[in-house]
Amino acid sequence: MTAVEPMPSATKVVDLLARGRELVEPSLRQAISRLDEHTRLVASYHLGWCDVHGRPASGSSGKAIRPGLTLLVAEAVAGTPDPGVPGGVAVELVHNFSLIHDDLMDRDTQRRHRRTVWAIWGDATAVLVGDALACLADEVLGECESPYAPQAGHALAVATRELIRGQVLDVAFEQRSDVSLAECVDMAVGKTGALLGASAQLGAILAGADPATCEAFRRYGRELGLAFQLVDDLLGIWGAPEKTGKPVFADLLAHKKTLPVVWSLEYGGSPGQELAAWFTDPEAPTADDLQYAAVLVERAGGREWAMAEAEERVRRAGKALDGAGVQSANREQLDQLAQFVAERQL
Amino acid sequence: MTAVEPMPSATKVVDLLARGRELVEPSLRQAISRLDEHTRLVASYHLGWCDVHGRPASGSSGKAIRPGLTLLVAEAVAGTPDPGVPGGVAVELVHNFSLIHDDLMDRDTQRRHRRTVWAIWGDATAVLVGDALACLADEVLGECESPYAPQAGHALAVATRELIRGQVLDVAFEQRSDVSLAECVDMAVGKTGALLGASAQLGAILAGADPATCEAFRRYGRELGLAFQLVDDLLGIWGAPEKTGKPVFADLLAHKKTLPVVWSLEYGGSPGQELAAWFTDPEAPTADDLQYAAVLVERAGGREWAMAEAEERVRRAGKALDGAGVQSANREQLDQLAQFVAERQL
Repeated sequence: MTAVEPMPSATKVVDLLARGRELVEPSLRQAISRLDEHTRLVASYHLGWCDVHGRPASGSSGKAIRPGLTLLVAEAVAGTPDPGVPGGVAVELVHNFSLIHDDLMDRDTQRRHRRTVWAIWGDATAVLVGDALACLADEVLGECESPYAPQAGHALAVATRELIRGQVLDVAFEQRSDVSLAECVDMAVGKTGALLGASAQLGAILAGADPATCEAFRRYGRELGLAFQLVDDLLGIWGAPEKTGKPVFADLLAHKKTLPVVWSLEYGGSPGQELAAWFTDPEAPTADDLQYAAVLVERAGGREWAMAEAEERVRRAGKALDGAGVQSANREQLDQLAQFVAERQL
Repeated sequence: MTAVEPMPSATKVVDLLARGRELVEPSLRQAISRLDEHTRLVASYHLGWCDVHGRPASGSSGKAIRPGLTLLVAEAVAGTPDPGVPGGVAVELVHNFSLIHDDLMDRDTQRRHRRTVWAIWGDATAVLVGDALACLADEVLGECESPYAPQAGHALAVATRELIRGQVLDVAFEQRSDVSLAECVDMAVGKTGALLGASAQLGAILAGADPATCEAFRRYGRELGLAFQLVDDLLGIWGAPEKTGKPVFADLLAHKKTLPVVWSLEYGGSPGQELAAWFTDPEAPTADDLQYAAVLVERAGGREWAMAEAEERVRRAGKALDGAGVQSANREQLDQLAQFVAERQL
């Protein structure tokens, strides 16, 4: 497969996400402003708002898919995105808490084309800034006037615990050579599905949807999360460094057993077996070695499987919304967002 | 000063704390049981419930002062400790989240006479288990049926952020030689006062007290927290290793600038200046050096100041409750608890 052109609707999705970021950012900045000076500086740096000295910067604070999702869902339910704003702020805070802690645990030194928090300020700061953002998420939800805030807070806590469980599995799997595809999917559901699920669910909860509708949106977000992770794993191998901010074949270089790799090891026949042997080689891989491993994943069928599976998850995301009483214009936006997630930058 | 005998009321306080532990433990165990297998094992080990392999153990899970406080306050307000139970579970979870992260950041290898989580399972596990316990605290409050749970959850989030701020200061102060007593007190208010304040406040909130009463209890807990920290700092220098679980002069050995030390540096005249010089010596201190530094803190007046200040904080804790409409029997228990905190093991 070669890179495909962005579909016509991608521009609309990008606009929707930008609108979401704009709606959420004032409250997000207000929340961050409550932090003590040092924590505020580090959090603002991480969010792309300033450089390491606190000078305003226009770094990327990410695509803000999670708050975008919360607002789209709130709009689909209530006709306006506004009730979703505190939820959008909360999920973005939890997402960034997990990124800061994950970078520390994985010892990743780069994120969004900049050095990571622990790499600049050390372990203790990374632990504390992450803790502070998680805590702020609770505060923001606890202070919003919505009668649905407690329910939203509880849903977010449950999802956060699942997110942590996903990272626990990720860390554990690094010590093991026999991780099955089912275990790997379970991890991805936790690491990515849980919070995207909660992002959609919180939009519905805060907009006052009934429990069945909230649950339908949660399932929509979860499936979308799995599609997101599959695409992320594809980008981790075949993504263009200038877009991903990571070296070519980054995940292979890091010997990461991502979903397409694990599928290849389990179902990839003899190329899969060759790939398994490649992973046991203790020597640092050369550029040719990495190219070779990527070709093996492709020959084993892992790349094709991951692309098809991402599409399947997008289909399931849509299916979760059938019968949730979403108006067709909103439904179109939600379908486009799911499609965008599955096709970004591939 | 030599060790004093426990006062007659100490036994009663110990009984009260034991009762609090018993009331809270079933819900605490229920909460921990929801965690994934690995996180559950590590959390159970940390709480003294099992050994590293998960075999039941009767290790110490600490004095459980925080949940004890929550229950005592709930009882003082509502006549029964029961409404305070979810609050007691939540504050104990937040406390243990902060211990696990602090041990990692401070690279402490021993706690409660056992190896710390990061020292056994590594940094990533310590980060994740701490995160999971913080998250469980939200879940427990979010699920309790009390109409006051959202208010309790918000109060706990605010206190947790202050707790984190205290630790941020603690980490920052390690890099500085010019920390003032005021800054050091501010740090202690965050690190110890905030959560003890919230422990008392949550008892009042969940028991349905009016805002002024909740605030009075919060101030009571905060002052008690500062007394607690002062005594902790005294024990860190002069505490008996078999009781503290730390080596003699542990905090001096670690070159920790605790409250009695910082007071001595700022107000301790020429012994204080000698102490300042001692702290700049890069050589690892011998047993004699440590003894010498401890004598300097004493000569400078830091030990006496810390003891008097702890008593003063206990007095202020009591004063915070004047006019809060606490029945005399309950008031006696709360005063005894404060006194116990200030006098434990000295």
